[in-house]
Amino acid sequence: MTVVALSGGVGGAKLVSGLADILPPGELVVVANTGDDFEHLGLHIAPDIDSVFYALAGWNDTERGWGRAGETWQCMSALGQIGGETWFNLGDQDLALHLERTRRLRAGESLSAVTAALCHAAGIATRIIPMSETPVPTVVHTKDQGDLAFQHYFVRERCEPVVTGFTHRGAAQAEMPRALAEVRDVEAVIVCPSNPFISIAPILAVPGMRDWLKGLGAPVVAVSPLIGGQAVKGPTAKMFAELGLDVTNAGLVAHYGGLLDGLVIDHADGQNVHDLSVATAVTATLMQTAEDRHRVADIALSLVEAIKEHVGS
Amino acid sequence: MTVVALSGGVGGAKLVSGLADILPPGELVVVANTGDDFEHLGLHIAPDIDSVFYALAGWNDTERGWGRAGETWQCMSALGQIGGETWFNLGDQDLALHLERTRRLRAGESLSAVTAALCHAAGIATRIIPMSETPVPTVVHTKDQGDLAFQHYFVRERCEPVVTGFTHRGAAQAEMPRALAEVRDVEAVIVCPSNPFISIAPILAVPGMRDWLKGLGAPVVAVSPLIGGQAVKGPTAKMFAELGLDVTNAGLVAHYGGLLDGLVIDHADGQNVHDLSVATAVTATLMQTAEDRHRVADIALSLVEAIKEHVGS
Repeated sequence: MTVVALSGGVGGAKLVSGLADILPPGELVVVANTGDDFEHLGLHIAPDIDSVFYALAGWNDTERGWGRAGETWQCMSALGQIGGETWFNLGDQDLALHLERTRRLRAGESLSAVTAALCHAAGIATRIIPMSETPVPTVVHTKDQGDLAFQHYFVRERCEPVVTGFTHRGAAQAEMPRALAEVRDVEAVIVCPSNPFISIAPILAVPGMRDWLKGLGAPVVAVSPLIGGQAVKGPTAKMFAELGLDVTNAGLVAHYGGLLDGLVIDHADGQNVHDLSVATAVTATLMQTAEDRHRVADIALSLVEAIKEHVGS
Repeated sequence: MTVVALSGGVGGAKLVSGLADILPPGELVVVANTGDDFEHLGLHIAPDIDSVFYALAGWNDTERGWGRAGETWQCMSALGQIGGETWFNLGDQDLALHLERTRRLRAGESLSAVTAALCHAAGIATRIIPMSETPVPTVVHTKDQGDLAFQHYFVRERCEPVVTGFTHRGAAQAEMPRALAEVRDVEAVIVCPSNPFISIAPILAVPGMRDWLKGLGAPVVAVSPLIGGQAVKGPTAKMFAELGLDVTNAGLVAHYGGLLDGLVIDHADGQNVHDLSVATAVTATLMQTAEDRHRVADIALSLVEAIKEHVGS
């Protein structure tokens, strides 16, 4: 049995980590968003792959909520001393990943191959597969500042500009990684509680991705990133509102446009369950502890089973 | 007045630092060896420029003898965890310099321009000019291991292979940096107590460099790297012997082939002063303290003055 998870960064990585813990080793395949990827200081940075990677290696900083545990910032500090760009904070340990990835990419390896090699070296059994071998950078259209590269919007401008839409540049030419074609016996597709616009939409924008997901013949279940009309972290709710969408799970299901068969929602939103056109399961979706992550992962997989039984009956 | 110093790495940087301290700000120009430069982890590493840079910024680690004070090694440690190459140890702070240099070079800046910008940012008044804009990598010919790239010989093999000679690859096509043509009113050329084969010879191998130095019309004075037939640090004496040369100051003068007008030697070698065909000054050449560095710098400049007076008289 194989479970495919679509994931963005930190929020998605929590559920990925929960799924990896409760599934037998090697049965989880993560399709990671690379719409946030960018070139910085000459390095290929892949924030979402890295968040998933660190979570699965057990190297993530659970207190700070991103990056590596025990991280130091000596290089950035020294970079500031010589007039370098320091608005995007790269930790000393984290730099190793960007250096090694960039070195391998320049040597001609594909992003999938590099990611697989890094996972192998770190002893990660879960397959992390980037959504595309080629860059599909998210461009954020804003009301007052025009088009912004994703990290300029996200980190430099701290998500403050009002968003009017997104372009997934290069999506039309993007190819699904070959590694996805080798994924067999998929029993469940889980859409992580990542930002639907900037984490999941880029994945779905890769030509063939929606068809591939549907063609797997497995139920597609999302865990909602919303809790009582708010996002746990990041600009998800703010974006819903700025785009004129309902900041609700019904809005989320509509946004995914027929992709979902089921949705795991929080107790706070349990009263609106009948507004949804998909199967639902209700739990506490906030994931702070390993127990939380295992519970949410388990609920999502149980909803998949329930949907299968319902279809079968 | 301008003083031009030819320098390799750590040993040369000590004298450079002494010269910079006793000369008025901006009167020192360092022509730095780039024969040790190499590409590693996708970064342009220029060990000798960096040693001079750190010494002049006051950031060098005087106890360890190389690199930056307060250096940490988190990135290398993390690189080892993901299967990366760790034989060449790059500190976290040090990485900033390589990242910023590489970024600027890739953006199309010349190595001279990058070095000047970094010096400016670090508040260094001395001009550090690389010997060439283009790579002139030193290839080490060895008895038993064939040809080795410099850092493979120097760091990975710890200078253990027996040396039979050197090639300065790319020297024939190398061009002297334009910045050197703008150096005016040179009163002295100081050859630092760097390794004559791998630190100074690459500089002299750049077409036009010897003629430019001679054409400056200033005395050329070297500080000997030998003390009683031994080198303070590194493989200098070993190389003299392996190449079948006398490990003496006479051997050094002969090696420089008519370049030198004077030589500063150590007390330990003072008895052989009459074997030398150039003017000499004798002092304690070991530089451990700032006082040592100032004394040796002062003696070298005094020898230049003495040579001028002698010529003038």
